[in-house]
Amino acid sequence: MSKKVITAGIVVIGDELLSGRTQDTNTSYIARWLEPLGIRVEEARIIKDHESIIINTVREFSKKFTYVFTTGGIGPTHDDITADAIAKAFNLSIDIREDAVCMLKQRYSDKELNKARLRMARIPKGASLIKNPISQAPGFQVNNVFTLAGIPSIMRAMLVDVQDRLETGIKLYSIAVMAKGISEGDAALPLSIIEKSYMNVTLGSYPNFNSELIGVQFVARGPDLEELQKIKLEIECMIGNLSQVNSIKKLNS
Amino acid sequence: MSKKVITAGIVVIGDELLSGRTQDTNTSYIARWLEPLGIRVEEARIIKDHESIIINTVREFSKKFTYVFTTGGIGPTHDDITADAIAKAFNLSIDIREDAVCMLKQRYSDKELNKARLRMARIPKGASLIKNPISQAPGFQVNNVFTLAGIPSIMRAMLVDVQDRLETGIKLYSIAVMAKGISEGDAALPLSIIEKSYMNVTLGSYPNFNSELIGVQFVARGPDLEELQKIKLEIECMIGNLSQVNSIKKLNS
Repeated sequence: MSKKVITAGIVVIGDELLSGRTQDTNTSYIARWLEPLGIRVEEARIIKDHESIIINTVREFSKKFTYVFTTGGIGPTHDDITADAIAKAFNLSIDIREDAVCMLKQRYSDKELNKARLRMARIPKGASLIKNPISQAPGFQVNNVFTLAGIPSIMRAMLVDVQDRLETGIKLYSIAVMAKGISEGDAALPLSIIEKSYMNVTLGSYPNFNSELIGVQFVARGPDLEELQKIKLEIECMIGNLSQVNSIKKLNS
Repeated sequence: MSKKVITAGIVVIGDELLSGRTQDTNTSYIARWLEPLGIRVEEARIIKDHESIIINTVREFSKKFTYVFTTGGIGPTHDDITADAIAKAFNLSIDIREDAVCMLKQRYSDKELNKARLRMARIPKGASLIKNPISQAPGFQVNNVFTLAGIPSIMRAMLVDVQDRLETGIKLYSIAVMAKGISEGDAALPLSIIEKSYMNVTLGSYPNFNSELIGVQFVARGPDLEELQKIKLEIECMIGNLSQVNSIKKLNS
């Protein structure tokens, strides 16, 4: 395991996500997509369509993380300001680029390519285009920042053209154990003891309150599958012990 | 309309949201819940269960926004570190508090109140408790920061005890117009002209690529319902014009 830890930050851009009108699903999709590549999402932000906020967030994330993914704000309308903001974040000029126009021509006739649609061919100088097989208007890469569409189906399709550009890191595996009738508060102490003996594993517990099945899901994540199998046995053993205690309590009550 | 603009920031805390294992829904729920109170969410962040990151984010948001809502990390296990981090963010001491223990006793017997569960009664000094009618373990308020549970059903129930503590602001209304068969690129120019004549209205357009119905939804948001009705008529008129142009194009092709 000589590979590096590779990190990512996600910037979701759009007023509609902060008004609650639209539910963001891009963050969790990108996170799940990055997992098998061994790239860990460290932080995600949902921000407004506001130039200085986009500039500051992208600059900060670009310095902090190996890769940055932005989604949203690269369409044809007046509130689509992401491309201009990214150019400013890296002090690049921005203009309509012929290679991007060429992509748009796969969808639009010369007549349809009005001023608004040509906005989608405004690309920061030196950026590398990201193909959009659905609606053709490209995303683009500047340094370690990948600027993608906000519409989930298009964003997902764009990731295909991003994958080969990413260095892969230490892959994390995860195992989950569901414990029915066990309470998080009873498991907390034995769980923390188990975690302390596995340096490279993070152990989380997620109680289930909604469904009829009251219980806890334990999730262990780490780079070593064998180690995770061992920890799984220990968690199952802990659950067995806690269940036994519960049964005795019930008998005594 | 003498009311102030009141803002909010949301901090969603939990590794499981950044691995993509869990889909965050707290952000959009809180945003929709705040809308009728005239409180505007300016930014949302999903961050790890990591003390210094929680401290820095909460400090920054507490200064930037009228209110801050955090969700997650106040359970009984070793990875629940939000309460301690909030205390540190405001340089407060933290300890087990009797009023919080009292709430826990509504659910747990003295025997069940082990060290792990008592963690849920650790409250920063001077904080005001937030009732949890589902699992009893309270949230708390420090200054303008409301610390809530991460489990959506519990978080939602806690908001009931938060509502009366919030100053309400200028309420924003929104109207939506769906246009079938219209493309965002054709609407962009007339739309930007409409927006320019309404200073207090923000106008967004959201293309629909997924369903069979290809089209655009136009959403106008602003404080004046009458003004929104006027803009709605203008948008409908614009859609009518664009549809006519489309029909003529089809006839000529």
